[in-house]
Amino acid sequence: MVQSLQLAHRLEDLNVLLIGAGKIASTRFPKLLPTGCKLTVVAREIDETFYESFVSGQLEGTNEGWSSAKQEIYRIVRDEFKTEYLELENYWHIILVCISDIGRSESIYSECILKYGESQLINVADVPKFCNFYFGSNLNLADDKLQILVSSNGASPRFTALVRNEIAKTFDDDLELSIAMTKLKELRSEIRRLTNASREKTDIQFRMEWVRRCTDIYGLRYCHLLDVESLLELFSEMYSNRSLTFPPKDEMLTKYLSVN
Amino acid sequence: MVQSLQLAHRLEDLNVLLIGAGKIASTRFPKLLPTGCKLTVVAREIDETFYESFVSGQLEGTNEGWSSAKQEIYRIVRDEFKTEYLELENYWHIILVCISDIGRSESIYSECILKYGESQLINVADVPKFCNFYFGSNLNLADDKLQILVSSNGASPRFTALVRNEIAKTFDDDLELSIAMTKLKELRSEIRRLTNASREKTDIQFRMEWVRRCTDIYGLRYCHLLDVESLLELFSEMYSNRSLTFPPKDEMLTKYLSVN
Repeated sequence: MVQSLQLAHRLEDLNVLLIGAGKIASTRFPKLLPTGCKLTVVAREIDETFYESFVSGQLEGTNEGWSSAKQEIYRIVRDEFKTEYLELENYWHIILVCISDIGRSESIYSECILKYGESQLINVADVPKFCNFYFGSNLNLADDKLQILVSSNGASPRFTALVRNEIAKTFDDDLELSIAMTKLKELRSEIRRLTNASREKTDIQFRMEWVRRCTDIYGLRYCHLLDVESLLELFSEMYSNRSLTFPPKDEMLTKYLSVN
Repeated sequence: MVQSLQLAHRLEDLNVLLIGAGKIASTRFPKLLPTGCKLTVVAREIDETFYESFVSGQLEGTNEGWSSAKQEIYRIVRDEFKTEYLELENYWHIILVCISDIGRSESIYSECILKYGESQLINVADVPKFCNFYFGSNLNLADDKLQILVSSNGASPRFTALVRNEIAKTFDDDLELSIAMTKLKELRSEIRRLTNASREKTDIQFRMEWVRRCTDIYGLRYCHLLDVESLLELFSEMYSNRSLTFPPKDEMLTKYLSVN
């Protein structure tokens, strides 16, 4: 069985076209707006969950004050989809078709592929053969700095949701995760700095391997307690000898953690 | 802070270009080949981990017997990257640049965006500003039918790996997951069949809500024990009354599970 390639896309300021604004489109919505994408919605009927995401009261036209930080819709066209609407922007990074008419969905899909080629990212809701990517169940952790996707190649959306919920239970102390992430980020960038951000192959490999072994000693359980300053001293010492032999685990758990 | 949009891409038979074949390219490799994508690698030096993925002994040219099911490389060009290699295919669904020369990486990035536009999916390893998507840490469960991505918007690859490892520990009984997934898939498709795959809005919503409530009663813990046949009888009965009031949890846990 072939697998999917799961990727995290940066969509800030990129054009996304959403055709339809019913129940299914509404589930795409909380995934799209936080990306800061420039979202154009084409739909005659609009589900009530959309209302608050456009500037108040205004439900068509262009949101002139749009900025990626505001996480609002950029444009609403209150109409059935017509081919000419593809011309509203020079390109669409992603096209989402969320209408219930399958025949019409198919013709929109064909038009898009004809115009933009097979590389066009497109997803026709509920019709797997017209999707070159799938959504899945999402979970954000560590103050939204960490994102998790659970997908099943379209096989069982409900199952991915259950697995997502189980993962959420595993990581119920979000604060510790957030601290751990900040500490690891700091450790990584300070280590880079200490080695003058050297791009020598051996230096890059030493840094990577050092961080890997160090964090494996602690695991997720202790990372939020790391004492970054003393660990950097340890790194400097080991780097000068090009040594990857860490002190015994006991010592790592006492000397380099800050337990208040 | 803006978030990413995490997606699962179907790449079977789609062209992917990988420039470079060193250590970092090697980490992309186990993510790409299982997708059945048509992978072209352009690189002068080739890391040893690549060897077994091409037809034995042959390390350049085109793998004539390539098929997406074989999970091998389609083509290797043993050369530094040159612009003309972009012409090897009509399009590249994804372009990955994994070379250590940042200046050269930047010029390849610019060429690609100029030629294919801003929608081209491209990732220049280790240079976030030249990436419109990120990789992350991956985990497969349930016999590879369930895929999980943990990403941090490029902030801390090591942290995503630790979280991934923690999730792996949570789901250590892979067999039960696999059975649960098969059962939910069966339940869903049989329910569709029982309602003649009706695309009436009210029917779609009833089906979705019924499955949601039903699986929420069981949670992931019991799903592998579902007795699909008796649950379908319950569904038929509730569907004929358009009722979403399930029997008490006790009854759900005894009558509709098959505990051998």
